[in-house]
Amino acid sequence: MSLVNKELIAEKFQLLQSEICRGLEQLDGQAKFQSDVWEREQGGGGRTNTIANGALLQKGGVAFSEVFGTISDEMKRQLNFNQGETFYATGVSIVLHPENPHVPIIHMNVRYFQIDEAAYWFGGGIDLTPHYIIPSQAKLFHEQLKSVCDQFSQEFYPKFKKQADDYFFIPHRQETRGVGGIFFDHLHEENTPLSKSQLLDFVLAVGNIFVACYAKQAELGRDLSFTEQEIKWRNMRRGRYVEFNLVNDRGTKFGLHSGGRTESILMSLPSEANWEYNFQVISSSREKQTLDMLKKDINWLNF
Amino acid sequence: MSLVNKELIAEKFQLLQSEICRGLEQLDGQAKFQSDVWEREQGGGGRTNTIANGALLQKGGVAFSEVFGTISDEMKRQLNFNQGETFYATGVSIVLHPENPHVPIIHMNVRYFQIDEAAYWFGGGIDLTPHYIIPSQAKLFHEQLKSVCDQFSQEFYPKFKKQADDYFFIPHRQETRGVGGIFFDHLHEENTPLSKSQLLDFVLAVGNIFVACYAKQAELGRDLSFTEQEIKWRNMRRGRYVEFNLVNDRGTKFGLHSGGRTESILMSLPSEANWEYNFQVISSSREKQTLDMLKKDINWLNF
Repeated sequence: MSLVNKELIAEKFQLLQSEICRGLEQLDGQAKFQSDVWEREQGGGGRTNTIANGALLQKGGVAFSEVFGTISDEMKRQLNFNQGETFYATGVSIVLHPENPHVPIIHMNVRYFQIDEAAYWFGGGIDLTPHYIIPSQAKLFHEQLKSVCDQFSQEFYPKFKKQADDYFFIPHRQETRGVGGIFFDHLHEENTPLSKSQLLDFVLAVGNIFVACYAKQAELGRDLSFTEQEIKWRNMRRGRYVEFNLVNDRGTKFGLHSGGRTESILMSLPSEANWEYNFQVISSSREKQTLDMLKKDINWLNF
Repeated sequence: MSLVNKELIAEKFQLLQSEICRGLEQLDGQAKFQSDVWEREQGGGGRTNTIANGALLQKGGVAFSEVFGTISDEMKRQLNFNQGETFYATGVSIVLHPENPHVPIIHMNVRYFQIDEAAYWFGGGIDLTPHYIIPSQAKLFHEQLKSVCDQFSQEFYPKFKKQADDYFFIPHRQETRGVGGIFFDHLHEENTPLSKSQLLDFVLAVGNIFVACYAKQAELGRDLSFTEQEIKWRNMRRGRYVEFNLVNDRGTKFGLHSGGRTESILMSLPSEANWEYNFQVISSSREKQTLDMLKKDINWLNF
């Protein structure tokens, strides 16, 4: 019987949520998170913290949830897991949409899943979606992620980086969502070199570098001035973010179709997004350069 | 061998597209449609006509397409049809987003589907999404639809009205998309009182009342002044429209997942949409009244 039980994990995740919110409030310097506690009829609940109209953050959410109950057949199908009677899931997930087009959108998620008392796994990831891609900034971001991964296993960063490229991809646009990051799922002690306790430390380490990662990106863009054209471009890139989340993101689809709390799931959507029919970028513009870098398998560390 | 073959149907649909565009340009009075002709690698193509920044229409599209090829297993699964080697599909589809929040969003689609030379069916519908619901205007709209349905069969309006309520529904919001309209699918001579030729006449009649329906709605709202608050509400309602189209609309999902032309499929998205976490309307406001009427099974004819 491991001491790393679900109660401990949920407690650590709640603490992580609080610390990230405190860190982001400092970073923003103006807006404060509003906390919304909710309960789930079938078991569990959560705390959705949201921020709006800040000096840096136009709209963002940092959500903790802990839900449990009977596994439905649909859930088994989606999880690709055919055993068990009950499930337990807890996690922290974050999406931040900054006001300034020169600061990227960011997403982070860490989660723990358990079937009955037997099977468990950890999952999660961080990815960055710059409205304007600057390779040196993407490099910085990937260096930070590699550094945290390397503390646990040399295999993690290359594997999880590739998985992020594959996951954060919009097939109907043939574009990656941004410059990727890391994505991992179904991690347990039998398919990694780590114990359950070390896996918890790993996902917490990923969570704990989040504010530092975003602070770096924010610092590099937040004081740059921007034009109406850049706002329009930002809003069109946000449109792609909406498309990915509603059409492709497994977590969003699973949540909406399994009767999750809609407002918490869709806190990931931006305050405003634009679409224009068949919008064409001007050749050799910064917008065109960005589109050209929305590709899988770019080794950002080498830029 | 019926004279109502696919070539004739496609020709009638193309004509319908042209006439609707001419009618909408007159209605708008300022903007003109831009025509975008495209080809599909696996067979067929289309003409996507779009309009933007008009006196009435902020963004809209009227698309004709005619596509054909080999049926994939995924396609059979989605169509719930297990026979045949080849498919042929042609249709006209429309979504219009007006500038003025007091004019509704409108959607119309008519389509013809054929498997090999044997099986065929018609489908389609019209539905109205007012940003602010006014029962007398919803009543007018439904009267127009009932009138065209009644010319073909007394069974059509009640059946298709109910099907629209069920189809244009957003489960994760527990809201209808708007005040509904009519929705029909898999119509052929064996499950309706009409011949194939009469079914074609029916879908063309639905197409042909489109401009008159929308002209009526536009006339009642386009000259009303509006506030910043009403624009914000309009954009949040558009956010719901985006959610329905990307999460729930079968045509959009089928198109995106089967490698359709993304820009033509997503011409239905508005130029701008907004989201706000857990937005609450004020009791007895016009926004609240609208939300209260986003329900199935309202008999608008009786209002």
